[in-house]
Parts: sequence; structure tokens; C-alpha cells
Amino acid sequence: MENDIKVFQETRAKIKAYGYFTWLMGWDQETEAPKGSVEYRTKQYQIMATEMYKVESDPLYLEAIERLHQHLDDITDPDFKTEIKNTYKGLRIIKLVPMNEYIDYQVLASQGSHIWAEAKEKDNFELFRPTLEKIVEFNRKLVKYLETDELKGYDILLDFYEEGFGIKEYDLFFNTLKTELVPFVMQITEGKPKSYNRKLSKQAFPVDKQREFSHYLMDVFSYDKNHGLLKESAHPFTSGVSSTDTRITTHYHADNFASSIFSTIHEMGHAIYEMQNDLKYDDTFLHGGTSLGIHESQSRMYENMIGRSKAFWDLHYPKLVKLFPRQLRNIEVDEFLAYINQAKRSLIRIEADELTYALHVMVRYELEKQLINGTLKVKDLPRQWNQLMKAYVGKRPRTDREGVLQDIHWSGGAIGYFPTYALGSAYAAQMYQAMDKEINVEKEIAENNIKAINLWLKEHVHKFAGSKTPKEILQICTKEEFNPMYYVDYLKRKFR
Amino acid sequence: MENDIKVFQETRAKIKAYGYFTWLMGWDQETEAPKGSVEYRTKQYQIMATEMYKVESDPLYLEAIERLHQHLDDITDPDFKTEIKNTYKGLRIIKLVPMNEYIDYQVLASQGSHIWAEAKEKDNFELFRPTLEKIVEFNRKLVKYLETDELKGYDILLDFYEEGFGIKEYDLFFNTLKTELVPFVMQITEGKPKSYNRKLSKQAFPVDKQREFSHYLMDVFSYDKNHGLLKESAHPFTSGVSSTDTRITTHYHADNFASSIFSTIHEMGHAIYEMQNDLKYDDTFLHGGTSLGIHESQSRMYENMIGRSKAFWDLHYPKLVKLFPRQLRNIEVDEFLAYINQAKRSLIRIEADELTYALHVMVRYELEKQLINGTLKVKDLPRQWNQLMKAYVGKRPRTDREGVLQDIHWSGGAIGYFPTYALGSAYAAQMYQAMDKEINVEKEIAENNIKAINLWLKEHVHKFAGSKTPKEILQICTKEEFNPMYYVDYLKRKFR
Repeated sequence: MENDIKVFQETRAKIKAYGYFTWLMGWDQETEAPKGSVEYRTKQYQIMATEMYKVESDPLYLEAIERLHQHLDDITDPDFKTEIKNTYKGLRIIKLVPMNEYIDYQVLASQGSHIWAEAKEKDNFELFRPTLEKIVEFNRKLVKYLETDELKGYDILLDFYEEGFGIKEYDLFFNTLKTELVPFVMQITEGKPKSYNRKLSKQAFPVDKQREFSHYLMDVFSYDKNHGLLKESAHPFTSGVSSTDTRITTHYHADNFASSIFSTIHEMGHAIYEMQNDLKYDDTFLHGGTSLGIHESQSRMYENMIGRSKAFWDLHYPKLVKLFPRQLRNIEVDEFLAYINQAKRSLIRIEADELTYALHVMVRYELEKQLINGTLKVKDLPRQWNQLMKAYVGKRPRTDREGVLQDIHWSGGAIGYFPTYALGSAYAAQMYQAMDKEINVEKEIAENNIKAINLWLKEHVHKFAGSKTPKEILQICTKEEFNPMYYVDYLKRKFR
Repeated sequence: MENDIKVFQETRAKIKAYGYFTWLMGWDQETEAPKGSVEYRTKQYQIMATEMYKVESDPLYLEAIERLHQHLDDITDPDFKTEIKNTYKGLRIIKLVPMNEYIDYQVLASQGSHIWAEAKEKDNFELFRPTLEKIVEFNRKLVKYLETDELKGYDILLDFYEEGFGIKEYDLFFNTLKTELVPFVMQITEGKPKSYNRKLSKQAFPVDKQREFSHYLMDVFSYDKNHGLLKESAHPFTSGVSSTDTRITTHYHADNFASSIFSTIHEMGHAIYEMQNDLKYDDTFLHGGTSLGIHESQSRMYENMIGRSKAFWDLHYPKLVKLFPRQLRNIEVDEFLAYINQAKRSLIRIEADELTYALHVMVRYELEKQLINGTLKVKDLPRQWNQLMKAYVGKRPRTDREGVLQDIHWSGGAIGYFPTYALGSAYAAQMYQAMDKEINVEKEIAENNIKAINLWLKEHVHKFAGSKTPKEILQICTKEEFNPMYYVDYLKRKFR
């Protein structure tokens, strides 16, 4: 066993080193690499990926994992145990799916996004349909290969992305939203847009001033500049490789100044989570956070619950007015708050507001469930999409581009991913309540002491990295099981 | 042989892929990586360097090179022949130097720069002396191990950095400078500083406007933004990995606006050289240029001969005035030209002007030659340095910090490197003359058509990358052998 541990640790170190360079290449590519450099870079990456594959598929390493997994009970370090369990789980696909099918699928998934992009651009679902059919078909076969006594069907895919969350948990969650939130949303979003919309959306906000405000926000949130940086990219993202190097990007549009503000805060939520992972996980596979849902809970909490709060803007609005004196001349802080917190019936998920966002996700969850169950055919997907959008968000897409073709996820094979987006917001509401029992969150925000919030989240969520499951994190943090009513209550209180 | 070629090419591809990631890591580190990320990065790099070493020292690869070198005459592709010759030459050190001595020296050289930095900071040569003594001692042994019938002593070190240039060539060069240039410099640099110095050096030039001018210069020089970018770093540098990805940095100091202008142009000279290497060399060891001297010839030609010319500023000075209307209010273009072209007796090489620069280098050349010959002891170096500075540049350092301790090169083991700096300027003068016979260089500058200059240099220097020796490049470009009188004449004409 000692030798197996040694083999595991040495191989892990190599995998992490290759991973570091892959990470850096991605960061460079998305933020500054010259356009014309893509071909040379791709060539180098392919060679490196082959080298990395050799390391990851070394029989000595795979056998060590097998044996360590057989003697899991003899492993005393719980973190190491978790790593072995996770790694072993990851190897099941390679062991159980016939190699040729798996490779065919990898190729399909890597080409899928190009085909999807063309279909979206041409607003033609038929171009994408055959690819999506194959992707769904493979996933239906995949869950057969992987099924166990405990996990079957769509549950397997859901568990990939959020361990411990399957149809049972998500049905409970989304049924609550259906009963409690949908009627509320329909009522709230009736009526005409407000006048501040016109005042704010018709103006240009100089990009350099937006940039200055984003850097101001980094200080407000105590984002650790010694271990990260803020840059620009087409789509904002967080890119972390260790607790000592977690970078973020945002984007600046002169005609949408709120977008950069909330993108920056959202990404800081992700980044502060990873930066506050315990340092000891940097050299393990556990660094980075436990799940997509928990990750999203942090970004959404920072963005929506802190960043869109009255306490926050009562304090920081004057700074914004100072940067944009002309544009914000006639806008009071309460109007500004109403502007950044308005709920609308909209078609595009990534532009949706806090109130309706989860309902966009619910549409996708129900469709995925039916696709994998086999009760929905891909050819019927657009019609079904439009019906559910009308039922849950109150608006029916006129085209597939603003309907079923809007998101990239399925084209890359990611089925079971979407639900974590909604879960994140619900986790956030429940965590916020728990935190608010121990520290006065609004007071800390009002006193420009977000550091205290970071610290609480570090102790109750962040420091554990991937060493606990999402359910365990929730238990540690809130001392309860997952309960979506916190989320519903929060939204109703805020938007009423 | 076919199999040896295959082994060579496959290993080369891997070495280049590892090299790509090392390159990217360096670029990131020097331009933006958060300070606190150094430890994690270093750890990943050490693992990767070990992996890379395994590839580079694979016996199959080394044996293939041996055999290919034995059958060099059977290789028909001249570029491939050059690669094998160069690679074989590089392996000689590993073969001929006892492993333990070589490793001890690597360690010494890697620690040397820290010891040097401390000694420089404390202005205490004695702190550095023992290290430098060991470095000189090793280099004296090294040339013994490597000597052949053709090359011995200091010639071997010089040849590392500039193939075909040894004591004979450099003596001819520097003796010309001693006879022709030193008296001229002494005469020119007599007298008081001019009034425009005070007018220009006492003002602040906002960094964002300097940045704007640097980006303007990128367009003026037709720097290909599709295959490169401009960023900022403590010390300006060029960092290229392929003809399709050649990046540069500059630096902005509010109290020294000329510095960023000429740093940007200097680095563009290096970058345009590499960008215009024939694309076919990207996948070989020949990409990047043939030597330090030829590289420096391009950067110096762009910086000094184009970038400090009257034709250039007659055209672009109004743009500069537009950016700095207050600062340049009372400065005519001719005063500005005099300011950026003034010659001074100075102590620091990297701040030296075009006229005196080579004389700073000459000091180092003479000292290196004596150190390796054994006619100078390290303990006598500071005294000797100061004497030569007085004799060649006309000014004697008062401290070792502004004397023998000013440069990092020796601390890392680089002996024989300095002379290429001076050679570059001399090459440039000779190449410029050759180019001026075929195109009217000043006219192209005046008509904002530097593209035509780039194109000429591409055809006569750049496209060959490392496939020709420096002497061959010079022959192709000027149809003559190296002749330092072009350089002397150019300087005298310009500074008279």
C-alpha cells in the first residue's frame, strides 16, 4: 500500500504540472493571445496532451488506484480517501464504456459546438438536430453502462455535476419553485417598464471609468491581488489553478455599465471561494471547490445578495456617481437599486434577472429529464421548449435562436449541468440565512467590512475545498439539509 | 538513417512543445502573474523540467543525432543539416565536460545572480568576488575540455554567442573603434549639457498618453498585431515562440518619456525579425534568428537608425506634440532630435547613447579576454574596469555599483556574450548602407512606408532565421564581409 500511495502521489504531481500548463494556455488564449497564433498553439497542445495522456493512463497508476480503492477502509487520512474515491469514480467511464464508442463521442462532442454555433447563427435547429440526437443517444447508452443499484438513468448524469443530487432532490426543488415562484413571477412581471430604464440604458458609460470602478470593487471585496488579477475577455470567467493563483476577467460595454459591475462581483465570488480553499489542497485533486452548485452559490451570493443589496449601494453609490456624474445626475440611489433589481419576462437565460433565472433553468431540467428517459424526441424539443418557457417564464420565443439554440452546453455533451445553476442560488439563500444568524451581514456590508463575510464563508464553506460533498458542506454551513424555501422566501421578500 | 530522422523529428516536436509551455510561463511571470503565485508555479515548473529533461536526454534521441552527424554529407536538405550540426555542437558540452563539474557549475550559475544582486545593492564587490572567481575558473576549464584544432580559449566562448566570430574578428572590430571612435567621442562629448535637457527632463509625461503613442508606433512600423501584442514589464523584452506569436513589452516612466518610445521601437526590431522568419522554420530549432549579434542589429537599426532619424520625426513629431501639447510647447522638432541623439560620457551601459554604447562594450570585451587568458585576476577587475572606462568613455566610476557590478551577465555564467551587443550596431550600419542602395530608406521613412524596409529586411535577413550563420547573412545582405568602417562612418556623420 505504501508503494501504491507513492505511485499515486508522484503521478498526481505530474498530472497537476501538466494541468498547470493547460490552465495557463487557456488563460492566455482567452485573454490576450494574438488571434493568428492559434494554429501553432494547438499543435503544441496536442503534443502535450498526448504526453499527459501517457501519464494519466500509466498502468502502474491505474493499478495503484484500483488497489487503494479496494483497501479504502485502511486509509486513515479522510482527504486522501476522498481523492481515491473520486479518482476511482472518474475511471469507471474508461473501464465500462467501450473504447471506440467513447472516442467517437469525444470527437462528436468536440465538433458539436461548431455545428451548434452555425445552427444558432442561421437560426436553424435542423442543422444541429442530428448532432444533438447522437449526443442524447450516447448519453442514454452511457447511463446504461454506468448504472449501479443506487444510481440509474438521468440521476447518473446529475450526479456527475452535483454529487448526491438526483431526480428526487431536483424534483423537490423545482416543484417548490413551480408552486411558489411561478405564480409570483407572473404577477410581479406584469406591467410596463419603468422610466429609469430609459434614463439609464440610453447613455454611454466610458469604459475606462468602468474599469476604475471594477478595480475599486476588488478592494471593497478584499479580493487578494497578491494571488490574483483582473483582466478582460469576451465572456467573464474565473480561472484558478491554486489558492495562490486565481484570476478573473470581466468585460466592459459602454452601453451596459451594470454588466461589468455584476460580472466582476460574480467572478470575485468564484475566485474568493478558490483563494480561500485551504492551502494544503493545492497539491491535491481536491483544490478548486466541491461542485458546480456550491461554486455558483458563492458567485451568486456575492453578486446578488451582497452586490445588489441596498446596504451595498447606500455605501458605494456615491463613488459610482463620482465616476459618472453626467450619466447618473438625475438618478437617486433608490432608482438605481430598482434598475439593477428589476424582474422581467425574458427569453435569454444569461441575461435573466435574479428572480426569473431559476425558471429558465427549470425548463432545461425538465427537457433533459425527458430526453434521457426517452419520453421526448430531439425533433420535438423546440416545440416543447417554447411551451415550457411560456408556462414558467411567461414568454414564448419566436425563433429557435432565442429559444432552444441559445446555450452551448448540450453541444459539448453537457447534460445534467444546467440544474446546478439554479441550485447555486438556492444554496446561497440558505447559507446567507445561516451566516446572518452569526454575523450581521447587512451591517458588515454597510460598514465596508466584506472581509468579515469572506472570513465566515472561509470557515464554513471555502476552506474545505473538495474534501466534503455538497450535502456535507451545506450541513456544516447551515446545520440543516437543503431546503429550497429559503430561496423562495428570499426572492419573495426582495421582489414583493 | 530514415529511422534516425524520424526519431529526431518526433523528439524535436516534443522538445518544442515543452519549450512552448516554458516560454508561456516566462511570459506570464514577467508580465502579469500575481506575486504570490511564484511558489506554486516554480513547483510545477520543476516537475515539467524533469519531464523535459527525460525527453532531451533520451538515449535513442542522442544516438540518432550521433549517427546523423556521422553521415552529415548524406543529408540533402541544407536546413536539416544545419539543425543536426547545431544540435550536435550543443551536445559536445554534455559529452566532454565531467557531469559533476557541469552540474556544480549549473548550480553556481543559478545562484550567481542572487549573490550579484546583493553585492550590487550593497556596493560591495568582495561579496561577489568568490562567485565570479569560480565562474571564471570553470570557464577556463570549460574551454580546455572543448578545444579543437580550430578553436581554443576565449574563442570558444565567443563562438557560442556569435558563430564565426572570435578574437581575430573582434580585435579587428574593437581596434578600429579604438583608433577611429575613441578620440572622436572625447571631442564630441566635451562641454556643457544643452538647455533642451532641462526643458524636457523636468516635466511629467502622463503614462496613458505614452501608451497611446507606443500603440501608434506599432502601426507606423507595421508590427503585425495578429501575431503579437504589446504589454508592460519592469524591463522591456521580446518574447517569441513562433513567427505567428512574437510578443513585446515596454515600460512607461512619467519622468522619462523617451525611454518608452525607444524601448518599444527597439523591441519591435527584434520582433519583426522573428515574425518574418520563414514560417517553415516554426517547427524546427532554426526559428528565432541566427545569433545575438544579428538580432541586435535589427533592434538597433529600428531604434537608432530609423527611430532616431530626422525623416522619422519630421513626420511623427506632430503626433507626439498632439499627445503632449503642454510638455512640448516650446520644443521644436530639431531640438527634440538633438535631445534624443545627444552623446554623453556616462557610466551605465544600458543608459548609454548610440555613440558611446560600443565603447562600454569594448571595456567588457577586453576584460573578458584577459580573464579567460589568465592575464587578469578577478580581484584586480574593479581597478582595471575603472581604468578602461576612463580611457574609452572618458569617465571613471566612483563606485563598483556604477562600475564592474552594474551588469547581471557574468553572474549567470555568460562570458563572451557582451561583444555581440556592439557587433549588432556595426552590422546594422553596414546593412543599412546595403539596403539604401536598393531602396531609398529615408524616403520610405518620410512617406510613412516602413513596410518597405521590413520587406527588404525580410528578403535579405529575416526569412533565413537560423538557417545561415551570421557571416553568411551578412554576405547575403551586403554582398561583403564584415567591415566596421561603415559603423564608424555612420556615427561620425551623425554626431559631427
